[in-house]
Amino acid sequence: MMKHALSVTREADFAAWYQTVITEADLAEESGVRGCMVIRPWGYGIWERIQRLLDDRIKATGHENCYFPLFIPLSYFEEEASHVDGFAKEMAVVTHHRLVADGKGRLVPDPAAKLEEPLVVRPTSETVIGHAFARWVQSWRDLPVLINQWANVVRWEMRTRMFLRTAEFLWQEGHTAHATAQEAQAETLKMLEVYREFAETCIALPVIAGEKPENERFPGAVATYSIEAMMQDGKALQAGTSHFLGTNFAKAQNIRFQNAEGQLELANTTSWGVSTRMIGGLIMVHGDDDGLRVPPRVAPWQVVIVPMLRDTPEDEALVAYCKELQAALSRESALGEPVRALLDLKAVKSTNKRWGWVKKGAPIVIEVGGRDMAAGNVSVIRRDRLYREDGKLDSVATARDAFVAAAGAMLEEIQQALFTQARDRLHANITPAADWAAVEAHFAEGARNPGWREVQWSRPTGAALEAVVEKLKALKLTLRNAPMDQPAADGACVFTGAPAVERVLIGRSY
Amino acid sequence: MMKHALSVTREADFAAWYQTVITEADLAEESGVRGCMVIRPWGYGIWERIQRLLDDRIKATGHENCYFPLFIPLSYFEEEASHVDGFAKEMAVVTHHRLVADGKGRLVPDPAAKLEEPLVVRPTSETVIGHAFARWVQSWRDLPVLINQWANVVRWEMRTRMFLRTAEFLWQEGHTAHATAQEAQAETLKMLEVYREFAETCIALPVIAGEKPENERFPGAVATYSIEAMMQDGKALQAGTSHFLGTNFAKAQNIRFQNAEGQLELANTTSWGVSTRMIGGLIMVHGDDDGLRVPPRVAPWQVVIVPMLRDTPEDEALVAYCKELQAALSRESALGEPVRALLDLKAVKSTNKRWGWVKKGAPIVIEVGGRDMAAGNVSVIRRDRLYREDGKLDSVATARDAFVAAAGAMLEEIQQALFTQARDRLHANITPAADWAAVEAHFAEGARNPGWREVQWSRPTGAALEAVVEKLKALKLTLRNAPMDQPAADGACVFTGAPAVERVLIGRSY
Repeated sequence: MMKHALSVTREADFAAWYQTVITEADLAEESGVRGCMVIRPWGYGIWERIQRLLDDRIKATGHENCYFPLFIPLSYFEEEASHVDGFAKEMAVVTHHRLVADGKGRLVPDPAAKLEEPLVVRPTSETVIGHAFARWVQSWRDLPVLINQWANVVRWEMRTRMFLRTAEFLWQEGHTAHATAQEAQAETLKMLEVYREFAETCIALPVIAGEKPENERFPGAVATYSIEAMMQDGKALQAGTSHFLGTNFAKAQNIRFQNAEGQLELANTTSWGVSTRMIGGLIMVHGDDDGLRVPPRVAPWQVVIVPMLRDTPEDEALVAYCKELQAALSRESALGEPVRALLDLKAVKSTNKRWGWVKKGAPIVIEVGGRDMAAGNVSVIRRDRLYREDGKLDSVATARDAFVAAAGAMLEEIQQALFTQARDRLHANITPAADWAAVEAHFAEGARNPGWREVQWSRPTGAALEAVVEKLKALKLTLRNAPMDQPAADGACVFTGAPAVERVLIGRSY
Repeated sequence: MMKHALSVTREADFAAWYQTVITEADLAEESGVRGCMVIRPWGYGIWERIQRLLDDRIKATGHENCYFPLFIPLSYFEEEASHVDGFAKEMAVVTHHRLVADGKGRLVPDPAAKLEEPLVVRPTSETVIGHAFARWVQSWRDLPVLINQWANVVRWEMRTRMFLRTAEFLWQEGHTAHATAQEAQAETLKMLEVYREFAETCIALPVIAGEKPENERFPGAVATYSIEAMMQDGKALQAGTSHFLGTNFAKAQNIRFQNAEGQLELANTTSWGVSTRMIGGLIMVHGDDDGLRVPPRVAPWQVVIVPMLRDTPEDEALVAYCKELQAALSRESALGEPVRALLDLKAVKSTNKRWGWVKKGAPIVIEVGGRDMAAGNVSVIRRDRLYREDGKLDSVATARDAFVAAAGAMLEEIQQALFTQARDRLHANITPAADWAAVEAHFAEGARNPGWREVQWSRPTGAALEAVVEKLKALKLTLRNAPMDQPAADGACVFTGAPAVERVLIGRSY
C-alpha cells in the first residue's frame, strides 16, 4: 500500500480525515471557546482570497458594501413570526453591560447593569437592515437598494464541526430592496448565478444550482435557492443560498415607497449569503490522503520555494538564487493576476517544509538544492500530480527560466484539473431513480460515495411534504434542490404517484 | 458672507458641524441600536480603502492575518488583573443562548438556556489570542509569532459619538510574541512607525508619534505609544496605538518557550491597533464648510463624472461621451494605482448630484453638458479648490483628452495639498510653554483652535503623576504623548520644578 502524508485516509474514516486535514494543513483549531474556532493564517488566507474574488463580483453587479450593528434588539425579531421561529433556539443573548467582582474573587455580570431590552448577537441581519431600508426608501427613485455586508454572525449550534457548523462564522450577506416582485426575483437568481460562477471558477467547486423545497426555505422567505456541492463521501454541502423574500420582511419592517403614480407600495426584498463553510467544501472536494489541495485562484501562495539549506556558507548563494526565482515569478501572471510566490526561509528542516506545504496544498512546491543551482535548475512538485506511476514523489528537475515561463500556464492547468476531476465525480454520482424502491435500495448499499439520486416529484406541500421529509429522514436523506434549467418532467412522482412537475435531488448532507 | 453647502459651519458649532458632515456625506447614521452606527456605503468605502492600504503594510512587515473568537470566557479576564480593571466596566456580556416566548407574546432569554460561564463580547483580544500563543509557542524556533486580525469589538460606552466612540467599532489588532524584550520593544516601535507613515501617506493626516504617559497606558501594558492627530478645533485625536506588553500577558496566559540553551522563558508580547476612529479624524482634519474632503488615496471614487442629462434623445450621446471618459481614466494611474472613476447615472437632478459629491468629498467632480461635449470638453471641479477668489464655484472647462492626461498628477497634487495644509496647521498650533502659568493663560484664552502646548517635565509617576493629571483635568486638558526623537530636555519641569527629562504635549482631546 502506498504511504501518504496523513495518518488517516478518506476511505478509512472520512470524518477523522477531515479533522486531520484541518489540523495538518494549519487551517484552524479549537479555540477553547465553545463552538468557536481560531482560523489560522493558511485558512484565513484562503478566506481572504475568497473575499477578494467574490467581493469583486458583488461590486461588479452594482452592490455596495455597508456595515450594520452586531447587536439586534430583541423586539426586532418579534416582527416577523416565521423568521424568529427559525432562529430563536440558537441565539446568543447579551443581557448585561458590565462585570463586577462578586466578593469571592470572581467576576460576574453586574446586576446593576442589566439591559432594559436584551440584545441578540446577529444570526443574520434581515431585521436590522430592513429597519435601515425603511429609513432609506421613500420613493421609487430610491430603488433598487443593493447592499452587501462582510461580517461575523452567531448561531448557537449544539453540535459543531469546524468550518461546517460553528457558533460564530464569517460570511457576506447581501440585502436588496426592489420596486417589483419580478425585479427582486431576478436579483435572487442573478446572485445565485454569481455564486455558481464564483464557486466553479474560483474554488473549482462544481455545483448544482436550484430551488430548495418548501421545508428547506430560509425562515421568512418566499423562495430559497442554493448551490449544492458534492463532497468525496457523496454528501451534499449547501455552499451558498439566495432568498426571494417577497414583501414578508417589508411588511414587518415597513419598507414602503411611493410609486411613480404617487401610491404607497411595499418593497420586495432579497438576501443571499456565502460563508466560511465554503472552506469546508473546498477541503472535502479537493483534499486527498496527503492533505489539502488548494485551487490556485484561492491559494494564498501559489508557488512556494524551499531552498535546501544546510547551515553552510553556500546557503547564501542558494538563497540569492531562490530570491531571483521569486522575483521573476512575481513578474509573471496566472489566472489574470500576478503569480503569488513565497520563499520559505523558516528555521525548519527542508523535508519537513516540503511535506508541510504538500499537506497545506500549495499548488506548486519548488525545491532548490546546491545541485539544482549548479545546473541552473529547480525541482518542481505539482500538488495535483504528487506521485509518479511507480508511487514515488514526482519531483521534476526543470531549468529555472523554463519553469518561470511555464508557471502561469501550469497554475491554470492545475486550477482546471481540480475542477474537471470534481465535476466528473459530481456528474458520475448523480443518477436518476425511477421509483422509491430504487432510492431505498441505492442508499441501503453502503457505497463509500452513494452520491445523489435524481427523482421526479409532484412538489407536494404542507402535510404531504412533511410525510416525504419523514420518509427520507428514516434513511438519513434530505431533499437538496430542484436544479435550474431542467428538462420537463415526464413521469410520476416517486412519493405520491401523482404526475411529476419537476426533478429534485436527494442525498445525505452536511 | 460666502454661502456654503452645509447648514452649519465649523466656526459656529464644531460638534454640530461634525454630525452634519457625517449625515450630508452619507458616511454613517444612527442604527436604532444603542451606541451602534450603520456605516453607509461612502463611509464603508473609505474604511475598505484604509483596510487595503494598511493591510498591505502589515503584511509587508511580515504579519499574517488570522481570526479569533468574538466571545471570550469570563475567566480569561481574571488572569490579568490590571487588564480586566481597564475593561470590566464596559463589557457586553452574553448570558443565554436561546430565546423563548414568555406566554404574553413577548420573547425573553430562556431561563433554561443560561450559560454556565458567561461570555464577554471581545473589547480587545489579548486574552484569547494569548491562549492561542501559549499553544503555538513551544521553542525559540516558533518565535516570533506575528499575527493580525481585522474584527469588530465592543466597549459599552455611555456617551457615544459616531466613529469616535461607539459601542461596536471595527479595527485591526496586531498581536506578536518574541523571544526577548528588546525584540518586542523594536516591534512596538516598528508598528508605530507603520501607523505614522500610513496616516501621513494615505489619510494625509499629519501626526505626532510618541510615548503615552503612565496614566494613559493600555491596561496591562509596560509602555504605550500613540500617533496623535490635531483636529481643526485644536483637540487631539489618538489615531493609533502600539503597546509593549513585556511579559505581563505571557505570565497570565502562560506563553513560555524553550530557549536555545534548553531553558524555559516567558515570551514578550506586543499589540497595536487602528480603528474606524481614523475616519472621525479624517473628517475633522480635512472637512470644510462644504462637507468632507477625502484624500485621493482613500477615496472610494477619485473622479466622479456627472452628465447633465435632460431626458432628451441627446442624453444617449452624452452618456457615451462620459463612458469614453470613464474608460480612458481607468487606464490612467494615480498614486500607484489605476484611477477610480465613477459615472453617476442615478435618477437625481444634476445640480443635486454635483453638491452631493462635493459634500461627500470626491476629490474631482467632472460635469459634462451638451456644450462641453460639442467642444470636446469637460468641466472640472477640484474639491481642494472649490471656489475662485470671487467666491464663485471654480469649474474649469478643459479639453477631455487634456484632463485625462492630467488626472493622475492632479490627484497626486490634491493628496499633497490636503497633507500640507493639515501639517502646517499642526505645526503652527504646537507651541512651547515655559511654565504652568503660560499653559493656564493659553487655554483660558478661548481661542477657536488653542492647539497643544509642549512643556518640559520630570515624568513623575504614581501619586505625583495623579496630581498632574488632576491639575490638567481642571482645565479639561490631558497629556497626549512625549514625541519620539525629541531634543534633550534642558529646563525645569513645569509641574514639579525638578529638572525636566523630556518634552510632553498637552491639549484637549476626543
